[in-house]
Amino acid sequence: MTLDAFFKPKSVAIIGASHNENKIGHIILQSFMCHYKGNIYPINPNTEPISGKKVYKNVLDVPEKIDLVVISIPAKFVPSALKDCVKKNVKAVIIISGGFSEVGNNKLEEECKKIVRGTETKVIGPNCLGIYDSKSFVDTIFLSRKTCGRPNEGNIAFVSQSGAVGSTILDWLTDQETGISKFISYGNAIDITETDLIEYLGHDRDTKVIAVYLEGIKDEGKKFVEVCSKVSRKKPIVLLKAGKSEKGKKAVSSHTGSLAGSGKVYSGAFKQSGIVEAETWEELFDFARVFSSQPLPKGKRTLIVTDGGGFGVLATDQAERSNLELPEPSDKLKNKLKKMLPEYAVVKNPIDLIGDADAERYLVTLRETMRSKEFDSFVVITLFQVTTLEEKVVDYIIDLKKWGKPIVVCSTGGEFSQRMNKKLRVNGIPVAPSPERAVKTVEALYRYWKYLTS
Amino acid sequence: MTLDAFFKPKSVAIIGASHNENKIGHIILQSFMCHYKGNIYPINPNTEPISGKKVYKNVLDVPEKIDLVVISIPAKFVPSALKDCVKKNVKAVIIISGGFSEVGNNKLEEECKKIVRGTETKVIGPNCLGIYDSKSFVDTIFLSRKTCGRPNEGNIAFVSQSGAVGSTILDWLTDQETGISKFISYGNAIDITETDLIEYLGHDRDTKVIAVYLEGIKDEGKKFVEVCSKVSRKKPIVLLKAGKSEKGKKAVSSHTGSLAGSGKVYSGAFKQSGIVEAETWEELFDFARVFSSQPLPKGKRTLIVTDGGGFGVLATDQAERSNLELPEPSDKLKNKLKKMLPEYAVVKNPIDLIGDADAERYLVTLRETMRSKEFDSFVVITLFQVTTLEEKVVDYIIDLKKWGKPIVVCSTGGEFSQRMNKKLRVNGIPVAPSPERAVKTVEALYRYWKYLTS
Repeated sequence: MTLDAFFKPKSVAIIGASHNENKIGHIILQSFMCHYKGNIYPINPNTEPISGKKVYKNVLDVPEKIDLVVISIPAKFVPSALKDCVKKNVKAVIIISGGFSEVGNNKLEEECKKIVRGTETKVIGPNCLGIYDSKSFVDTIFLSRKTCGRPNEGNIAFVSQSGAVGSTILDWLTDQETGISKFISYGNAIDITETDLIEYLGHDRDTKVIAVYLEGIKDEGKKFVEVCSKVSRKKPIVLLKAGKSEKGKKAVSSHTGSLAGSGKVYSGAFKQSGIVEAETWEELFDFARVFSSQPLPKGKRTLIVTDGGGFGVLATDQAERSNLELPEPSDKLKNKLKKMLPEYAVVKNPIDLIGDADAERYLVTLRETMRSKEFDSFVVITLFQVTTLEEKVVDYIIDLKKWGKPIVVCSTGGEFSQRMNKKLRVNGIPVAPSPERAVKTVEALYRYWKYLTS
Repeated sequence: MTLDAFFKPKSVAIIGASHNENKIGHIILQSFMCHYKGNIYPINPNTEPISGKKVYKNVLDVPEKIDLVVISIPAKFVPSALKDCVKKNVKAVIIISGGFSEVGNNKLEEECKKIVRGTETKVIGPNCLGIYDSKSFVDTIFLSRKTCGRPNEGNIAFVSQSGAVGSTILDWLTDQETGISKFISYGNAIDITETDLIEYLGHDRDTKVIAVYLEGIKDEGKKFVEVCSKVSRKKPIVLLKAGKSEKGKKAVSSHTGSLAGSGKVYSGAFKQSGIVEAETWEELFDFARVFSSQPLPKGKRTLIVTDGGGFGVLATDQAERSNLELPEPSDKLKNKLKKMLPEYAVVKNPIDLIGDADAERYLVTLRETMRSKEFDSFVVITLFQVTTLEEKVVDYIIDLKKWGKPIVVCSTGGEFSQRMNKKLRVNGIPVAPSPERAVKTVEALYRYWKYLTS
């Protein structure tokens, strides 16, 4: 199924485009007018021009073809607007409006379903934020850029059932200089489901990783597993399922009306489908970002290199809680390293370069250990607080990408560290804010590699 | 035992004070000269003045009394300097220098131990960062303020065995506008141990919370448990133990030479001592900060209030993994709230104020639920991305402190959210960056309350 009309429309109509600056229909129209390059048709019974733009009473009055219609009007008027879209043979409709099954108004939702069933009109929503596409600038996110940022172009697609969670995702990614290809908040999913979106994104050339926030599966479970199993062979799917606990299930049902199954059943299905499951909101990001930039490891042999022994220990504790292994360097490699490092450096695993380490110690250690082929992945814990560790270590680490091995840096702290972290991130090296999260992130890579190869 | 000479000295001598700007002895001297109000005596065989300050060859040449001596010279010269300090009857010595048992030089360390044994001279270190006191400006942290910030005055004392981990703690706290009373990195602990420090901080009026990063217990386990059991009756001790795993134990022994016992034995001892154990580096902060500003709950009944249903579900999942309970409001309270909220708001637990919530909805909900006495603690999840949620919700939340109930806010995102979070934090409301961490933080409060009351 192609959903191109949603993401690459040549023309867009906004039903509910408003003169009132506080209205959602106004914010959405402005977003399109500022950034989108195709034709825009505001629709409103009051046909006074908005910001100089001609307004139509109805989509049926628009003489040209319309690829995408965004509906943002009170719920009770939605069925009639939807009928007009079907009549006009619009391929893609996003219903932003809330007031359907999520507030118990199942009848109205059912009515909308019937209107599009068997037609060529596909619907995302209702009760959603809709789409942000960093390339085409389809942007139906009705939150001001002042309070909710928009990420740059990148290769992560984010699919979120919840609009609220979705908005924090967008805003946080922007802050973290993490680009995305597409963002979709799909709400009540009367037509297009998470399964459809994952299937489409599986074919999307701009998307390398699919990240999903899910409360309940809207589609049949069987279809979901089938589609994800296929897609996960091609690209990683990282997923956070909310409502896995008993109380959480009830909260989901209050929130979206969807029925959540048992957490164990879900996790089993995800595993079977090759999905990399995240356990927390932070893991969803950490995992999405590492897949976005890092190659897969070809095994579980991880090396930890640090200039902060304590952080090395914390990373080791986490590695033991994971499926990763921390083999020591071979005697040959140890001897090589010992010749190049001060005698007080600890050449085991972790390799502790000691608190007075400079950038050169990192350089020789990482170069030789990568060259050795004794390790599949690297956790590099840099303490930028230490005065001897010069800024150029960042360039050295970035340069290591040429070895084609996955690297995750752990670095935390204030202004200076954050500037270093930003440089690493924008150059394709993921940075975790704690040793535990760095190791978990590498483990996610390994889990996916293991699925693909077993 | 009083350690006042370390934290409130009237005079300080720096052995190894250097003319060379890159030397540790120079950085430490500069820190004292910039901020510390007492007498400062630089000690160096080359007696040319440093930055206009008279230099002495030896502490014995200083005519006045010296309360604190900081030693930063190569390890082999330390015993001789230490002997001079004993002769001069100096009460407090911090040995910054490394090169002792941590690199296998146990003999030299033993020699230093013998020199001070039975004398009135107490020693912190060697192989440590020493002390930062936000009130007296004793600051032996030899890391430039450019790369490692110094927090403002506050009520958290941080005790770190590892200097490297300690430096990230300092830097991160500064970034997070979290004040501290004292910071101590105590290294190899040939004399003053974590137990001594915890005991002293237990009496310290400026300290409300003691946060500890530990690799192995330097003192006898029995004494540690005894002291912590007493102190934890008066103020919370939050502790992160590194090296709890088998591999982690080995890494600790490479790193500091201390013997780490089994993780389970440690956790048992911590529990018995009333210590609130953190499992990760991030938890150590989260917990320290919540104890720093929040009163204890008087039970496990937690209320989650949010305008983002999905985040409410994630918080619920975490609550079910914890010892907290999420009771629903009584019928009476529900009816009261329903009258004040839109009909589509979900008045259960979580209370979902829905994505178009404004500040007033938070105000009435939190006021009425606090007044009801049906809940012991509050997790407030605000999505500042949402345009309807005005800035004044922050003032409303800050004002809720008057009810004397613990509150943790969960808020995450970019620039705007971070500005709101900062305002909350500096006004004594802890902010967690994810729903899971918010709930874990409240649980830490509950764990400590339960220990105190059972």
